[in-house]
Amino acid sequence: MPSYTAPTKDMQFLLHDVLNVTGSDIPGYEELEADFTNAILEEAGKISSEVLTPLNVVGDKEGCTLENGVVRTPTGFKAAFEQLKEGGWPGIDMPEQYGGQNMPAVIGTAVGEMFSSANQAFAMYHGLTHGAASAILAHGTDAQKDTYLPKMIACDWTGTMNLTEPHCGTDLGLMRTKAEPQDDGSYKISGQKIFISAGEHDMSDNIIHLVLAKIDGAPEGIKGVSLFIVPKFMVNEDGSLGDRNGAAVGNIEEKMGIHGNSTCVMNYDSATGFLLGEENKGMRAMFTMMNEARLGVGMQGLSQAEAAYQNAVAYAKDRLQGRDVTGVKNPEGPADPLIVHPDIRRSLMDQKSFAEGGRAFLLWGASLIDQAHRSKDADADGLVSLLTPVIKGFLTDEGYDMTVQAQQVYGGHGYIEEWGMSQFTRDARIAMIYEGANGVQALDLVGRKLGADGGKHVMAFFELVKNFCKENAGISESYAKEFIEPLKTASKDLQAAGMYFMQAGVKNPNHALAGSYDFMHLFGHVCLGLMWARMGKAAHAALEAGASDAAFYETKLTTGRYYMARRLPATGMHLARIQSGADTVMALDAESF
Amino acid sequence: MPSYTAPTKDMQFLLHDVLNVTGSDIPGYEELEADFTNAILEEAGKISSEVLTPLNVVGDKEGCTLENGVVRTPTGFKAAFEQLKEGGWPGIDMPEQYGGQNMPAVIGTAVGEMFSSANQAFAMYHGLTHGAASAILAHGTDAQKDTYLPKMIACDWTGTMNLTEPHCGTDLGLMRTKAEPQDDGSYKISGQKIFISAGEHDMSDNIIHLVLAKIDGAPEGIKGVSLFIVPKFMVNEDGSLGDRNGAAVGNIEEKMGIHGNSTCVMNYDSATGFLLGEENKGMRAMFTMMNEARLGVGMQGLSQAEAAYQNAVAYAKDRLQGRDVTGVKNPEGPADPLIVHPDIRRSLMDQKSFAEGGRAFLLWGASLIDQAHRSKDADADGLVSLLTPVIKGFLTDEGYDMTVQAQQVYGGHGYIEEWGMSQFTRDARIAMIYEGANGVQALDLVGRKLGADGGKHVMAFFELVKNFCKENAGISESYAKEFIEPLKTASKDLQAAGMYFMQAGVKNPNHALAGSYDFMHLFGHVCLGLMWARMGKAAHAALEAGASDAAFYETKLTTGRYYMARRLPATGMHLARIQSGADTVMALDAESF
Repeated sequence: MPSYTAPTKDMQFLLHDVLNVTGSDIPGYEELEADFTNAILEEAGKISSEVLTPLNVVGDKEGCTLENGVVRTPTGFKAAFEQLKEGGWPGIDMPEQYGGQNMPAVIGTAVGEMFSSANQAFAMYHGLTHGAASAILAHGTDAQKDTYLPKMIACDWTGTMNLTEPHCGTDLGLMRTKAEPQDDGSYKISGQKIFISAGEHDMSDNIIHLVLAKIDGAPEGIKGVSLFIVPKFMVNEDGSLGDRNGAAVGNIEEKMGIHGNSTCVMNYDSATGFLLGEENKGMRAMFTMMNEARLGVGMQGLSQAEAAYQNAVAYAKDRLQGRDVTGVKNPEGPADPLIVHPDIRRSLMDQKSFAEGGRAFLLWGASLIDQAHRSKDADADGLVSLLTPVIKGFLTDEGYDMTVQAQQVYGGHGYIEEWGMSQFTRDARIAMIYEGANGVQALDLVGRKLGADGGKHVMAFFELVKNFCKENAGISESYAKEFIEPLKTASKDLQAAGMYFMQAGVKNPNHALAGSYDFMHLFGHVCLGLMWARMGKAAHAALEAGASDAAFYETKLTTGRYYMARRLPATGMHLARIQSGADTVMALDAESF
Repeated sequence: MPSYTAPTKDMQFLLHDVLNVTGSDIPGYEELEADFTNAILEEAGKISSEVLTPLNVVGDKEGCTLENGVVRTPTGFKAAFEQLKEGGWPGIDMPEQYGGQNMPAVIGTAVGEMFSSANQAFAMYHGLTHGAASAILAHGTDAQKDTYLPKMIACDWTGTMNLTEPHCGTDLGLMRTKAEPQDDGSYKISGQKIFISAGEHDMSDNIIHLVLAKIDGAPEGIKGVSLFIVPKFMVNEDGSLGDRNGAAVGNIEEKMGIHGNSTCVMNYDSATGFLLGEENKGMRAMFTMMNEARLGVGMQGLSQAEAAYQNAVAYAKDRLQGRDVTGVKNPEGPADPLIVHPDIRRSLMDQKSFAEGGRAFLLWGASLIDQAHRSKDADADGLVSLLTPVIKGFLTDEGYDMTVQAQQVYGGHGYIEEWGMSQFTRDARIAMIYEGANGVQALDLVGRKLGADGGKHVMAFFELVKNFCKENAGISESYAKEFIEPLKTASKDLQAAGMYFMQAGVKNPNHALAGSYDFMHLFGHVCLGLMWARMGKAAHAALEAGASDAAFYETKLTTGRYYMARRLPATGMHLARIQSGADTVMALDAESF
């Protein structure tokens, strides 16, 4: 059975050596002393390894079952959920006013990665609740906040997001779910929603569904969509639970993975709903949740890659097969461990350099969110908006590929369910799809985010890379050659792609859109290149300062060199694909496929 | 439920326009008139679509069950197997002497692709039998051939390959299964084998296991391994079945996919076995099977990509979501079909250009086998030996990626088992692993095949590409620019990689091995580039000649242009990775992972 050890040391390195959190002026960051964050990360890591990891295979094997409208989660899930609640983990980065611990997103994200690495299907129950609570926090009335948030932040009640219908996912303008206004100001919601994660289960007293629907007479399309709070059980004035609402699970989907999470078809039959935010502004309200959810999904991609990588390493050290061509390494044994073989290392280094680079990217993104929200910094907000589709699309695509590579290290055993490596790939697969399939992330990036505010944010990103290169090229000759030069080259490729979009996309938007997916990956590589350059710099500084744990920092530098030398050259390929334009992509008639 | 239509037209194009089979002097090719091959392909296609495809999801859902030592295959499998046998399909390219139809491998491969696209798990039952029969054909005594081949070629008896043991897969020198010589010339085989496809099932009267084992006192390691025929039921002098042999299924593995095939743990308990080939030369005999099996596995990768692609196209045409940014395409509908969107097309073109290019590569490989065997052409044998790891590794890696892309087109529905797209990826995943994991293919390619016969075969490949470019650059200006130039560039990258291996690999073999996986992919792209150049040439010629089906040939040219412009630039990235050498790959201590 796979195991998992939380990468607390790496997270501490990122928080303190790279992001220098206590040196930041973001409100709340001053409390993040190394001892304090270490205590949090160690504790979350312990729960992850000891409580959530053993339940991961249980969830995969048992799945969720629906009987007479009641969904049963896998054995042990409810007890673990209680333990998580008791520790206050679900509300770690939620406001104190509603029972949270008010820590920055950067801490919530680090902890979230651990929980998700240990058990993605499980972590979704409180993850979705967090998203739903955030939407109520941002758009709810004071009364709504008082009614729902304390219970949701404590996870006594969980939350869901209801967007997709059988005939529409990405194109929500086609939505058919209706909301009929009632005299008391509430609405009657009727319609069917599909793919509702944690839509029904046995771990909480109530479930607060956030449901997109169209009010009678609303404008056509996406502009006529509103968001509603639809509780499973009505909530009385005194906060106690009342009647069962007309929201019921119709079916549990049989999925490729995340079996431990109940993915429901939800039927709303004149269910009582309460408008959240303004009429016909449902998409705006939902997007509060979606952006947060997209970072959370990017995190899932990374989290599965990390967990799979750890197990691939363990297997590669343990399994004896063949001999090192440069000389026997395990003369007492019948063969050398797999890890001596160059191609196994190539795979492990791909995985390691992605996991550590991706983690840096994710925590940087979370720190930008903190800067945007806590310091009210519009530039940080613009930058993280730009990066959100990259974090979601790149980290989930690459994260998935890394789980496949980790599985491959196991040879035939990787294909046998008993060994647990298949589950990482099957679970990771969903992250490329939900919260906006990755093609939609690419469209969001190129079609919307690039040009937002006159292209200001992407220009700021380029400026940031340029300045970093300028300021740090002098660190050492080898650092300049191994880190700065490749980053410059990759960044130039990204700029050239942006330039191509501007020039060719003006004539025909398809020239930009046909390259959107490659652009997302190109952008992702530049971001990870930047992250490795920053980590390399921090490692260099630590070694210069005579850090006691020199091996840790040397390993960082080596891993960074690998990413720079072996992964960054992908930018040239993506640029070539982009610059080939839309002609070959769009040339065929639909019938010719 | 997914559907499948055999690509008979594309196969006819490859056989006649590209490979020009009837113009070849390979014995047996003279019979392959277009009408004749069309009749075979149409008939095989019909069985594939109508009989095997509907059973694909059944096999996935039901799997195989083991009860009291009896394995039950999924509902309908046995009847379909009978139908296949009645049609003589399993022996289509086997010698007439033993009841086969003696057709060339190029036909057997085309038909095999169809069966595998329709139902990979099912096709493995006769696929493995074919491999086992080939080994007996190549290494058996006349008596062995007479005893086993007629029954196996008719698939009254099926065959298996037994290599892997729990502690060894790639490194078979570690094998523990023992063979004790008996006075009558037979052996008693004892040991445990795992991952035995079709090891036990209810579709044939007997199962002929080919088992690798070590004879008492044999040399250490791989040089002491022999191959044995171990029938499930002993065969009497008159060919009737006798006693049950000591070969029994211990367990059925629970796998990620190919649930319809029974993957068994096989226990041999003093089972009677008969030496196949020479003592201690078991690996050589097994490799007859392995090379054939590797091409067959490459075919599986391609076959799943093709089937998944067809369904992705159907969904992309059917599903209405969003509007074409360049203008509404379906004004009567609430939205345009997915296929209008550039990124969906990018994905479909990746898939289409791979499937058609991969098919050309595979059939070219099969025709080289025919040339090697039927024309006793040592050069063709050397070339196909060189290409075998590329066909296996590249087509299965890429084939898998394409199933993932096809699944992605379905959005959320791609993750729901009911829609069937998940099965394509889960089934395709195994092809990257078995018959030598793809890392082992890369090692075989770089460590063995490149330097074989003094590098003669890789030089011949380069010469072949060079001559093709020289001879065909004059076809037209656009053809030279769109096909020949990119092929030249890609081929130069491959040569540069080979040169790097020669120069750096001499100093340290790790410099070559650390780039082996990238080299395999680089080589694969050059091969598909060559295939597209050949197909482009053939399409060009057909259009010049005023072919009636101009649209088909125009589509070929467009698809080829896509591959050349959008996929071939990957060679530059692989070269950069290769040329970065082994330093960053090998730098870390095992403990630093």
